Amino acid sequence: MFEFQITSKNNRARTGIFTTPHGDLVTPVFAPVGTQATVKTLTPEHLKEINATLVLSNTYHLYLRPGDELVRDMGGLHKFMGWHRPMLTDSGGFQVFSLAQTRKIDDDGVTFKSHIDGSTHRFTPEKSIAIQENLGADIIMAFDECSDPNDHAYSRIAMERTHRWAERSLKAQTRRDQALFAIVQGGVNPDLRAKSAQFIASFGTPGIAIGGLSVGETKEEMHATLDVVTPLLPEDKPRYLMGVGTPEDLINGVARGVDIFDCVLPTRLARHHSAFAPEGRLNLMNAAFARDARPIDETCDCYTCRTFTRAYIRHLIVAKELLAGTLLSIHNLRALIRLMEQIRGYIADGTFESRVPELLNQWANNAKRNAADQHKK
Amino acid sequence: MFEFQITSKNNRARTGIFTTPHGDLVTPVFAPVGTQATVKTLTPEHLKEINATLVLSNTYHLYLRPGDELVRDMGGLHKFMGWHRPMLTDSGGFQVFSLAQTRKIDDDGVTFKSHIDGSTHRFTPEKSIAIQENLGADIIMAFDECSDPNDHAYSRIAMERTHRWAERSLKAQTRRDQALFAIVQGGVNPDLRAKSAQFIASFGTPGIAIGGLSVGETKEEMHATLDVVTPLLPEDKPRYLMGVGTPEDLINGVARGVDIFDCVLPTRLARHHSAFAPEGRLNLMNAAFARDARPIDETCDCYTCRTFTRAYIRHLIVAKELLAGTLLSIHNLRALIRLMEQIRGYIADGTFESRVPELLNQWANNAKRNAADQHKK
Repeated sequence: MFEFQITSKNNRARTGIFTTPHGDLVTPVFAPVGTQATVKTLTPEHLKEINATLVLSNTYHLYLRPGDELVRDMGGLHKFMGWHRPMLTDSGGFQVFSLAQTRKIDDDGVTFKSHIDGSTHRFTPEKSIAIQENLGADIIMAFDECSDPNDHAYSRIAMERTHRWAERSLKAQTRRDQALFAIVQGGVNPDLRAKSAQFIASFGTPGIAIGGLSVGETKEEMHATLDVVTPLLPEDKPRYLMGVGTPEDLINGVARGVDIFDCVLPTRLARHHSAFAPEGRLNLMNAAFARDARPIDETCDCYTCRTFTRAYIRHLIVAKELLAGTLLSIHNLRALIRLMEQIRGYIADGTFESRVPELLNQWANNAKRNAADQHKK
Repeated sequence: MFEFQITSKNNRARTGIFTTPHGDLVTPVFAPVGTQATVKTLTPEHLKEINATLVLSNTYHLYLRPGDELVRDMGGLHKFMGWHRPMLTDSGGFQVFSLAQTRKIDDDGVTFKSHIDGSTHRFTPEKSIAIQENLGADIIMAFDECSDPNDHAYSRIAMERTHRWAERSLKAQTRRDQALFAIVQGGVNPDLRAKSAQFIASFGTPGIAIGGLSVGETKEEMHATLDVVTPLLPEDKPRYLMGVGTPEDLINGVARGVDIFDCVLPTRLARHHSAFAPEGRLNLMNAAFARDARPIDETCDCYTCRTFTRAYIRHLIVAKELLAGTLLSIHNLRALIRLMEQIRGYIADGTFESRVPELLNQWANNAKRNAADQHKK
């Protein structure tokens, strides 16, 4: 059911088609994040119009609210949220470690308190898979533990646990219409990452995720880790770099053989009034845009840029009108999806690798981090 | 330029076509309110999809923020907000009296303090027209004073001032591509309303507005006032009942010869999680809807009802996702626009008058007022 066909290659970068029950996914692809079964402020129609093909939703959030059994009883996540293209759910592990209140981890699983109401819950690999089977995404994740990249001693413990949990996750799977990806961990330790990549690849899952990056390590460490991991993964399986990233991360990730990305950055920037623009990231609340009759990006084909000026968007922000968030989310997501379309074109015509410096340069002004960029996934 | 052609009649109810620079307006029509140059949470594409034809925006708000001169310099309100169908602006009078902080009225105009920053401003008939000419709506309003319906002594003073201000507003007009409507006032006093209707009609403006209703009077007083006013107005001019109203107000208004309505009710209800539904107004935050797999209204043709369940909308509300407001606004506005389409059909086939009781009965459960219904326009 889950075939991955590579359609073109340019050194380690490749384009491909991953077949899912909700249609073919053309890779490399950037997935907007719909944490609570909605990509914040956008309708599924907006997502189709910006050519989004894969949407991620969060197991931890949906388990707590509205509950995975409710979603199942409503016909599954696709039907519930009106999105009939491919979907991906994470395992809930990352959120348990980053969002939940007190948590206690043991070899069997994790007990934690909800960030919403403090109630106590327990996730195990078996529970994570059961929840994800109730949700019904096309691509689901093995339960894993993401460790602090700066805690090298603990990275081994978390990696070994992740490996045992991957085995249990695979055994727990009962649905055959969901592609279960196992996850490579190992912090920023090359030995551990190599070991993890080989071990995880040995399961023969229809795709492989790379976890534990974009969580506090340097860009150099991220690149070095990818340089260790992707060459050890099978060519004929898609690689998903979880929770990444910025425009430069996408360019660098594709160059290192990554096929699938997701990140909250475009919608989070939108909530902070920021937009990707040719001259760099703009905060449109700034008074400098009060009479700026240009679109955010004259070269952009999104509804926002085709229809509205910077002055209008600034007015909406200052007047506290929620439409500002919608218009900025449309643009920011379209900007990254358009970047991926451009990258796929370059890989197909064999010019991607030579254009990496040019692409990185184009996006250099948008790469800078600001307060809105904290990578809470 | 501003012709009004009556296309069918059913006793006092009529259908018509009002020609404007941004296209023909088929009446009777309900106009969504876009106070700050945006119908809250909706894009112009959403508005087109629900068949909105006329959008109202508020002179008081736009004068204060972003400023009418800025809107003019950006090409006018239509271009600024991306809405290329007919628009209407009010005179700002009502908001000065209801929203501004301290205000001081004299025969020349009103001095008031901004509700945003307390700064001092002055509106006169000439200023109101100048602002509305900068904004550039198709239909604009004479500056008027709306009095408390329960203060009969003051109603005469406000009415006489409104008459003098109508005269000055007309003299102040310089653009010929905007239809300036004069406004009938007179509280709930039949003598004053009759006098005002005759005086205002004598100006020969391309349309006539009826102000000072839905501001605290009873339904019986509203109906009695319309029964006095509309028979005294010229047949061949559209009548606009300002800031009205509920579904029952629309039905009763059309039956009394009104052609144009506007009200914030549908979008305000949406912000309070409420929806027009066959069984009455629903508050979708209610736990009763947690597993309700039906759309809000199975007979509704809107995007929300075609795509989403009550359970999903409730989830969005509980999870504080802004998409809830967008989906509810689409449905609530479409419900009133669809009611007007239905009414136009009934007038055209001669059955409207006989169907008024049936229509009122259908909407009886939606007529009840709740906290969200306070008519701050």
